[in-house]
This record gives sequence, C-alpha cells and structure tokens, in this order.
Amino acid sequence: MIDVAVFGAGRIGKIHAGNLVLQVGANLKYVSDVNMQAAQELAAQHGAQVADIDRALADSSVGAVLIASSTDTHADLILRAAAAGKAIFCEKPVDLTLERAKACAQAVKAAGVTCMIGFQRRFDPTFAALKERLAAGEIGDPEMLVVTSRDPGAPPVSYIKSSGGIFKDMLIHDFDIFRWILEDEAVSISATGSCLTDPAIAEAGDIDCAAVTIRSRCGRLCQINTSRRAAYGYDQRFEVLGSKGMLQAGNHKPTEVTASTGSSVSHDLPEHFFLERYRAAYAREIAHFFDAVVNKVAVRTTIEDGVKALELAEAATLSWRENRTIELAK
Amino acid sequence: MIDVAVFGAGRIGKIHAGNLVLQVGANLKYVSDVNMQAAQELAAQHGAQVADIDRALADSSVGAVLIASSTDTHADLILRAAAAGKAIFCEKPVDLTLERAKACAQAVKAAGVTCMIGFQRRFDPTFAALKERLAAGEIGDPEMLVVTSRDPGAPPVSYIKSSGGIFKDMLIHDFDIFRWILEDEAVSISATGSCLTDPAIAEAGDIDCAAVTIRSRCGRLCQINTSRRAAYGYDQRFEVLGSKGMLQAGNHKPTEVTASTGSSVSHDLPEHFFLERYRAAYAREIAHFFDAVVNKVAVRTTIEDGVKALELAEAATLSWRENRTIELAK
Amino acid sequence: MIDVAVFGAGRIGKIHAGNLVLQVGANLKYVSDVNMQAAQELAAQHGAQVADIDRALADSSVGAVLIASSTDTHADLILRAAAAGKAIFCEKPVDLTLERAKACAQAVKAAGVTCMIGFQRRFDPTFAALKERLAAGEIGDPEMLVVTSRDPGAPPVSYIKSSGGIFKDMLIHDFDIFRWILEDEAVSISATGSCLTDPAIAEAGDIDCAAVTIRSRCGRLCQINTSRRAAYGYDQRFEVLGSKGMLQAGNHKPTEVTASTGSSVSHDLPEHFFLERYRAAYAREIAHFFDAVVNKVAVRTTIEDGVKALELAEAATLSWRENRTIELAK
Amino acid sequence: MIDVAVFGAGRIGKIHAGNLVLQVGANLKYVSDVNMQAAQELAAQHGAQVADIDRALADSSVGAVLIASSTDTHADLILRAAAAGKAIFCEKPVDLTLERAKACAQAVKAAGVTCMIGFQRRFDPTFAALKERLAAGEIGDPEMLVVTSRDPGAPPVSYIKSSGGIFKDMLIHDFDIFRWILEDEAVSISATGSCLTDPAIAEAGDIDCAAVTIRSRCGRLCQINTSRRAAYGYDQRFEVLGSKGMLQAGNHKPTEVTASTGSSVSHDLPEHFFLERYRAAYAREIAHFFDAVVNKVAVRTTIEDGVKALELAEAATLSWRENRTIELAK
Repeated sequence: MIDVAVFGAGRIGKIHAGNLVLQVGANLKYVSDVNMQAAQELAAQHGAQVADIDRALADSSVGAVLIASSTDTHADLILRAAAAGKAIFCEKPVDLTLERAKACAQAVKAAGVTCMIGFQRRFDPTFAALKERLAAGEIGDPEMLVVTSRDPGAPPVSYIKSSGGIFKDMLIHDFDIFRWILEDEAVSISATGSCLTDPAIAEAGDIDCAAVTIRSRCGRLCQINTSRRAAYGYDQRFEVLGSKGMLQAGNHKPTEVTASTGSSVSHDLPEHFFLERYRAAYAREIAHFFDAVVNKVAVRTTIEDGVKALELAEAATLSWRENRTIELAK
Repeated sequence: MIDVAVFGAGRIGKIHAGNLVLQVGANLKYVSDVNMQAAQELAAQHGAQVADIDRALADSSVGAVLIASSTDTHADLILRAAAAGKAIFCEKPVDLTLERAKACAQAVKAAGVTCMIGFQRRFDPTFAALKERLAAGEIGDPEMLVVTSRDPGAPPVSYIKSSGGIFKDMLIHDFDIFRWILEDEAVSISATGSCLTDPAIAEAGDIDCAAVTIRSRCGRLCQINTSRRAAYGYDQRFEVLGSKGMLQAGNHKPTEVTASTGSSVSHDLPEHFFLERYRAAYAREIAHFFDAVVNKVAVRTTIEDGVKALELAEAATLSWRENRTIELAK
Repeated sequence: MIDVAVFGAGRIGKIHAGNLVLQVGANLKYVSDVNMQAAQELAAQHGAQVADIDRALADSSVGAVLIASSTDTHADLILRAAAAGKAIFCEKPVDLTLERAKACAQAVKAAGVTCMIGFQRRFDPTFAALKERLAAGEIGDPEMLVVTSRDPGAPPVSYIKSSGGIFKDMLIHDFDIFRWILEDEAVSISATGSCLTDPAIAEAGDIDCAAVTIRSRCGRLCQINTSRRAAYGYDQRFEVLGSKGMLQAGNHKPTEVTASTGSSVSHDLPEHFFLERYRAAYAREIAHFFDAVVNKVAVRTTIEDGVKALELAEAATLSWRENRTIELAK
Repeated sequence: MIDVAVFGAGRIGKIHAGNLVLQVGANLKYVSDVNMQAAQELAAQHGAQVADIDRALADSSVGAVLIASSTDTHADLILRAAAAGKAIFCEKPVDLTLERAKACAQAVKAAGVTCMIGFQRRFDPTFAALKERLAAGEIGDPEMLVVTSRDPGAPPVSYIKSSGGIFKDMLIHDFDIFRWILEDEAVSISATGSCLTDPAIAEAGDIDCAAVTIRSRCGRLCQINTSRRAAYGYDQRFEVLGSKGMLQAGNHKPTEVTASTGSSVSHDLPEHFFLERYRAAYAREIAHFFDAVVNKVAVRTTIEDGVKALELAEAATLSWRENRTIELAK
C-alpha cells in the first residue's frame, strides 16, 4: 500500500483523487488546500485526512503527491516534494516562467524522483490509438500535423490575466501533442493572433484566437489553430498526413443519436469541455502514474516534456508579440 | 444512327429523352403524348417531331421506343411495339395485373425484341457499387437483406386509387432489389401494413406503411420497411449482412456541408425525391439500353424481372389482405 | 447503509458488484456462487463475505439482492428473496417458461417488494437519450420501429441448447425495446428464421438468424432483424420513424480515429460485445436500482416488463415453429 | 445564338467545350490548338470548325472565347480577345507575373468586355452552399478559416519547373477561397514549406508541402495546409469558425457504400482528382459565364480576383523564400 497526498481540492484535484483511489494498492492519506472546506469535503469523501503540506511531506509513509493546486504553486511544490523524495504528479504547466520550470526539472533529476506532468491528452483513447497506429507505420512517415484546439467559451478575464496568456494556458497541450505525435523537435515557430470575442481580453494583454506554424528538424510542418470560443463546444481534433495516408482524431460525442427532421440530419455536439472530453484520459494518466511509482518504471510525460512545451509557448508568445518567426536552438 | 420514339412527354419521359439524346448514334425522331402541348414542347427541345403512336411504330427507321406513358398503357404499347419489331424500354411496372404482364413477356419473347424494364435503381452508382463488391465476395455469402424505402410524402389520393396499391406502386422496386442483390428467389412472403398518415388512403383501400418479410430458397431473410411519408425526405437505404461482414447503401446528399452550432452538428437532408436521387441512375440505364440495342447484347433488367417483381407485389398484397404468409411456387 | 447480497459471481455478477459498491450508502455484504473460488475472489475484491443463499436471505440487515446466477435459478431466487422481503434486482430473463415468470411476478406483487429486471439497454446513454427526445415530441408520433440486433458470434452449442432459443435468449431485449420505445403493446407477431452459420445450431433445434414483425395496438409496425454472427462486431442499432422525422441509435465505437489510406477511409468497428457496449448502461441500471431501493420509488424495468417480453418471445417462437402469424390477447 | 471559340483542346478545354454546348443559345463555332489533331477531334465532336486564333477573333459573329490553352499564352490571348471586343472566359492563372496580369486587367477594363477567370471552386455545390449559409448569418461573423488542399500526387517535374511554383500553381485557388469566403483582404501573409516527397522537386527550386497563415484587415485568421501528395486522393476541405458556430465543407465521395468487415468500417475514398471532384463546378461556371454574356450582367470571378489571388501567391512565395512575414499594402 502506498500513501498519497493530494495538494489542491478543486475541480481537477477531485478528479485525480477519485481516480487514485481506484488504483489497487493506493491509499489517499492526505488532502491539502488553502480552502479548508474544500479539503475537508474531499478528504471525507475518501476517508482521508486534511493536512497542511509540511505535514504531508514530512510523513515518511507518503510515497507520492498529486499537485493539483493553482499554477503559481506548482514549482514550489515540485521543489519541496522532490526534496522530500516523493514521487510527483503535477498538473500542467510546470510554471509560467521557463527559468523556474527548468530549475524544477533539475531538482527532480538531482533528487532522482519520479515526476509526471499532466499532459492527459496523451492518454485519451482516441489520441493514444492514433499514436499507436502512426507508430505502427499505418500511414508511413508523418509529414504534416494540423491541430484544432478550441474552447467552448473564454474564462473570466481575471483568470486570463494570471494565465500566462493563450499560448501557455491553452496551447501548451497542443505543443506537447506536436512533440509527442511527430517525435520531432521544433526549429522555428511563427504565431499570430487576434482578439475577436471580447475587447476585455485585449485590454488584459492577451488574444482569444491564434494561428501557429511550427517547422520541425526534419522539415515537417505543423499548424495549430485555436480559439477561446467555439459555440458548438470543445473542439479537439488533429490530423496527421503521412507518406501513405492520413490519421484523424475526431471529437467525442455523448451519444450516437442521429435525428432527421424536415430541416436537417443532426448529431450530438462534441463533449462540452475538458472534464467530459478527457474523463477517460484523466483516469488512465493517474493509473499510469501510480503504476510507474509502484513498478519503478519511467513515466510517459516527464518534467522535461513540460519544459519543452513551455519553451514552445514562450517562443510562440514572442513570435506573436514581435510579429516574426522565432528560430529555436537545436 | 438509330431513330427513337418516346411515348409519354411527362416528367419521366423528359428525363429519358434528355438522356437518350446524349447517346452517340441516337436520334430522337418522334414524341407522342395525349397531351399535345407536352409532346410539342419536348419535341421542340430536341428537334424531334410530334407523331401519334401508329405513325411512330409504322416508321421502319425507328429502331427503339421508350415507353414513359401512364401505367395503364404500358402493356398495350409493349405488345404493339413488339409486334412492330422495335426494341423496347418501358417504365415499371409492366402492368398492374400479372396475367397481362406475363402476356407481354411472352409477346416480347416471341417477337425476339430487346425489352428493358426501368428498374433504374440497379444503375444507381451506390447500389451498383455495392452489388459489385458483394459479387466480388467482400462480405462472403449474403444472409440477410434489410431495405428501407420511404417517400417524402404521399401522392394525391386520386393517384393512389389507380396505383395498384403500395406494394405494386412503391415496393415493386424493392422486390426487384431483393432478387437482384441476393440472386435468389422468394419461397414465402409475409406483409402487414397500416394507414397512419391520412385516413383517405385507407378509404381508398390502401395503406401508407408496410413491413414485409421474404424468405428465399436458400433460407436468406429479407425485411423491407416502407412508408409514404418521411419528413426528412426520400429515404433509400439497404444493407446486406454476409458471412464475413456487411455492406450498406446510404442516402445521397446534395452537398457535403456540415454545420455545428450551439444546438447540433448537422448535415444535409437526403436528396429530396426520386428525380434528384436517381438522376445518375436514369442516365446510366438509358445508356445501357441504347448500348444493348446498338450492340445487340442482353439488357440487365428484363421483362421477366418485371414479371417476377410483380408476382412478389401481388403476393405481398394478398398476404396483407388475408393476414397470412403466402408460399410461392418454386 | 444498506447491505446487499450478490448471487452469482460470474462475468455479469462481477460487473453488478463493481457498480454496486460505487453507490453511496451501499455495502456489499455477501457473495454467493456454486463456484466457491469465484465467490471468494469477488468477495475478497470488495471486502465482502462468502455465504450461501440461505444465510444471506436470513440476514435481516440485507436489504437487497442482486441475482446474477444462471437463468434456471432466477425464478427460485426471486421467490425466495420476495418471501424474505428483500428488494430484488434480477438479470433477464425472469425464467424460460411464461408460467413460472408470471408466478414470480405474482409473488413479488404479493410481497410488495421492489423487483427490477435487468433490461440494461434502457439505461444506455444513446438509447435513453433517443427515448427522451422521442417523448419530447421531436419527431411527432412514432409510426415504425426497425431494430438491428446482431451478436459478433454464436455461443457454444451447449449454451444454445439450454438458452431457450434465439427469441428468449437474444431477442428478449429487443422485445423490451419495442414496448419501451413505442409505449404500446403487440397485437400480432410474425417470425421466421434460418440456420445459416452452423448446422449444429439447427441440430440443437434452434436458428441463428431471424426476422420478426410486430403490429401494435395502434397499428404501428416493428421489424427486428437478428443474427448470431456479425463479422464486424456487436451490432445494436434501432431507428424510429415518426410523423415528423426519424431518430436513430447508432453503434458505439472505442475511438474516434479515422484512417485514410490508398484503399479506403475507415473507422473503428463497433464495441465488440455487450460487456463493452453496455458498460455505462450496467452502471446506470444498478445506480437506478439502488436509488429506487433507498428512496422507495418505482423501478423503470419491472418484473411485469420481464413477463411481457417473455410473452413476445414465446409467441415469436411459436410463430417461427408453426409458420404463422400469432395474434396476442389484448 | 452566340458563336463561341475555344482556345485549347486539351483536358480542360474539352470539359469547357462540352459544358458550353449544353447552354441554350450557345454555338461552338471554332476550336484552336497548336496540336492540330486535338483541335480536329474536339471540333468534330461538337460540329465546330478548326481555326487559328486570328481567324476566330476576326469573325464578328464570335461573341465569346474560352481560353483553355497553356498558362504562358493566357495573357496574350486575353489582350487580343479584349482588343477584339470578345467576352472572355480564361482558366486560372491570368499569368505567372503580377505585372502582366495587371496589364490584362487594365486592358479588359479599357475594352469594357466581360472577363471571367476560372476559379471553378466557387461554383462547387458544397462550397457554394457553405458560402450562402455563411452569408445568411448561420454561424455569425466569420473569425477563422482553415483550408486543406492536397493533391493525390505530384505532377511531372517538367511541369513543376514551368508551373510558377506551388503557391501560384496549387494555392492560387485557396487564396481565392480565402478572399471569397471571408469577403476580406489580406494584410499579411506568412508561408513555409518543405520538400518531403521527391528531391527532384527541391532541385527544381520548389517545395511539395506548405503551411500558410494569412491575417485579414479585420483580424481574421486563415491557415492553409497543402501537399502535392495525399495517398488517399484529392483532399479539398475547408472550415469556417464563426462567432456562432462552424461550417465545414467536406470531400465528395463517388458512392455512399459503407463496408463493415472484421477489420474496419470503411467508406469510399474522396473523388480522385479535380476533374471528378469539380465536375459539377465546371458545368456551373460555364453556365454562369454564358448567362452573364447573354444577359450582360457581371461575372462572379473577375480578372481582378485573378490579380488579387496572384498577389497573394507572389507574397507567399516571397515569404517562403525569405523566411519572413510579408505585409501587404492596403
């Protein structure tokens, strides 16, 4: 039995906790949150204790921590957990600054602890199946990747202000998809964007839609289009053109009902947002993390992956701000 | 150059005439119709002459006739055209009575003329491709056929009264599909139906929806469901279950536009009715007929096929009326 | 907290047990099975005790039982559980004989206990959404129902011999779908079938494919086609034609990957079989059952529904054997 | 009756001639081609005469010319036809140099003749329906356009050498789509590309895949991805994200057959290449041109549209070569 502490009892913390307790051999021992009521409710639901972070990290029975608190706490918690020798699962992003993210990666490496970053999309059944089929050579060598990544609606401007901007907040996942799917690194990135849905987003110094183009070392091309607002829901698609064909990952729907009326033949909208769309992915990533901890094997989404995605997000932000293509160091 | 006469200048006559003149070596010489204005307009459009049927049949330069007049004239025109030694294309059905249809078939055989019945669905790109793939063994041996055959709306009750009933008027095509797709004959047929859309149809002695089950000599099963009213348009699908898989023929749409809004993801309705849905099929069947005439080869939808489909329609009508399964002579 | 006993620790018993323990307020206390090892394993997994049925039923703390043992034990267990005053969830069918099923229904009624039959399809997200939209009037009045119900492959002939035949074993679910979707009862039923996949099935007195037509009191038509073998997987579709349109329930797929290669554009096969296809449905039906027990409200799939579906299965069997339409008492 | 001359009797010249003769009031009088045999065959097929260009332009009965000869002849023929006062239909591109294209536009304007450029995609049933629905406000204001434009295979390198490069040869259509769909002009364009399929293309100074991003005056974003090779056929899709939803134009398929086997559920590949995919579009554009000539109304794809698309192609080429974003004069 491995005792686990969860830091953060909000929306995503609850999901991770719920998935953790399904793992054979896992015991959710502590829940920490600055919101004491949230911590108590989550602890009560799973028979865990509320504890502050110091206590949880000081308990030598705790083998792993799940960091699901706000982004600005990630780096500090990673450093402290690494120092305490705990296996770490941390939500993306590692940090909003590349410097601190790299420092975390170094600390993790020095401590020799397991550290997994929550790029849950790699564990989505559709995306993972696509990746497997690509790796099996079904469409030959990948040449082009087109990613569509749109949210159903923008978050409050207050959130946007502290989000790090659209590239670090939303596209960090898509930058990871680029690296994961093509198994290649970027040599240049070019980004542009607009604010078309709400002037307050522009006033906050951000944009609400963006178009990004990445060239890889092997000359592969990747285009990412994104928007904070898709009236029809959460749009999460990508397609890979290869030398022998194409693989496409489509949206998931709640049901397979088709309605034919006098006006149209219609289907369900896509799953509304990430909690619905990536329900299975969240379960699988925690299972993978816990399995890696138990069996002492490597995790599939490392803190280095987190750093690399953040590098791309920073470069994209710079490209957008300075209206030029950014060359990336090889 | 082969001169051709068209009997009937209505909706379907115009389509056949328009397709005929596209055939290299075909000359539309005569148009006949009891509606003189319709005949004159169609003749003028294609540089043909208006003529009565006697004159057209007496003209030895006429090698073929297209019979597209009302159903009650089909048998008489087939007999006269056969007697005159003309190649014959005739719209379905041959006749509303089996006896007269058989007499036509015998006359055609005795005269040794080409006679093709307009089961245009066999020439539909989708249906024909399915048939070819089935014949190539893609799904092994066919075991079950499910046919959906629904009109967008009922015709006037005046039409229904002289239509021969839903089985002879609508399902005659589906009975032909059964024979064509399975390459098998019926040993029993069971039909039931209701009048759910308009009481006037029941008063006219007919039904507006029906469910038919056919057993074939080889023990294959076929189910046909039909309705005079599908609010979403002309629904023309069938599927074949085979020992190694399934082939499905889906509806055709006018465009490939998909609209995603706040309420649904929607596509076009099916092509509205037979003129739109079977546009390509009508062109291909006339090309096939003319090719058969020119090259003196067998047509693919013979008058015997017309007789066989009518036999099934009569048996289905009897099954419905007497509420019992009808065994068919082998 | 309500203590629950599970009778039957096989494939479906495990699923029900796993779903039960997720219900807040449910305690899996006993597991019974003639296979002691299976009982022990399932009990161990959930911290329950192995017990024989007498002990479980004698324990006054047990408020509900889940019957997931072999079909021939259902009726006896229902009678005993009802006599003991327990709430009952029982897998379909109630029994293979109508007489015993009716006796169970009477005993349940006399005892005044909750009794739910496991027609899990009513709880499938797609089917349930279709039903809701139909009830909301989206396609007007339902007029026709077409059900496709095909298994990926036949079970061993030894199973078939004791299964009650294809109508009681496979189509019992579809008969329930008919009653549930149309909210109408059958007045006549006509069935035919063949044995096309394996002569041993015919030797066992059964068939492997069937075509059923049902007329309802309101004159609605229902066609069901079934086969023990669909090479492409578990095919579970139905469609309702209404006065204002059509609702279709399609198959579920494991992923939304589309592959385009030099030969075709392809998607996943349907979920392979019932355990995959109805995973969510099984979870929802147990949640519904437990909620009904806790809140003392009516269950949605009653033992009367079980009896009615069995009546249709018996009538279909008779229709097939005697090759005639069976009229059902109103 | 309006006499028409066709210049160019190759693949596309034949299609335009065949569509022209279907127009009521059109008479194909002359066919010109440097390949005398091709000219004779096409003339013979439609009862036209072979004539050199001088003779055709000198014939005052000729009201319109269709220019379907090689790209390097377009500008000269436009100038001569405009000088002769003929209505002009010319295949894209107007010319490979912007300067000459602009000179043509000025000459056409000065002569006051009708001049239509063959951007046939605007007449495609799917694309045109999407445009109409967008204009009708179905998805609110357009914000983002994503275009996928891929050929089934690269042409011979000899063709590529004189093609003007991928942006003028392939993407000229997509640049027109951008302007037509968004009804907006570009303010900047950024392009990158690679040669991944055949080194000979790189040796010829060209690329075989490209990624283009365009910003419009209103801040809308457009991404275009293209490749000379899609193993699955001609991939011609685009989607528009609007403030209230999304409209997508999908590929067309030859048939609506679906095959389900033990390995997959599959559909037809897209129509193989432009002749199949845009068959209806070619027919509609010639009908539109002839109607505009007869009724003296404006054409929908003007020579100015041809110039504008060429400007974008030149800017994209420059962006790719110099690896920088190109700002376009407003």
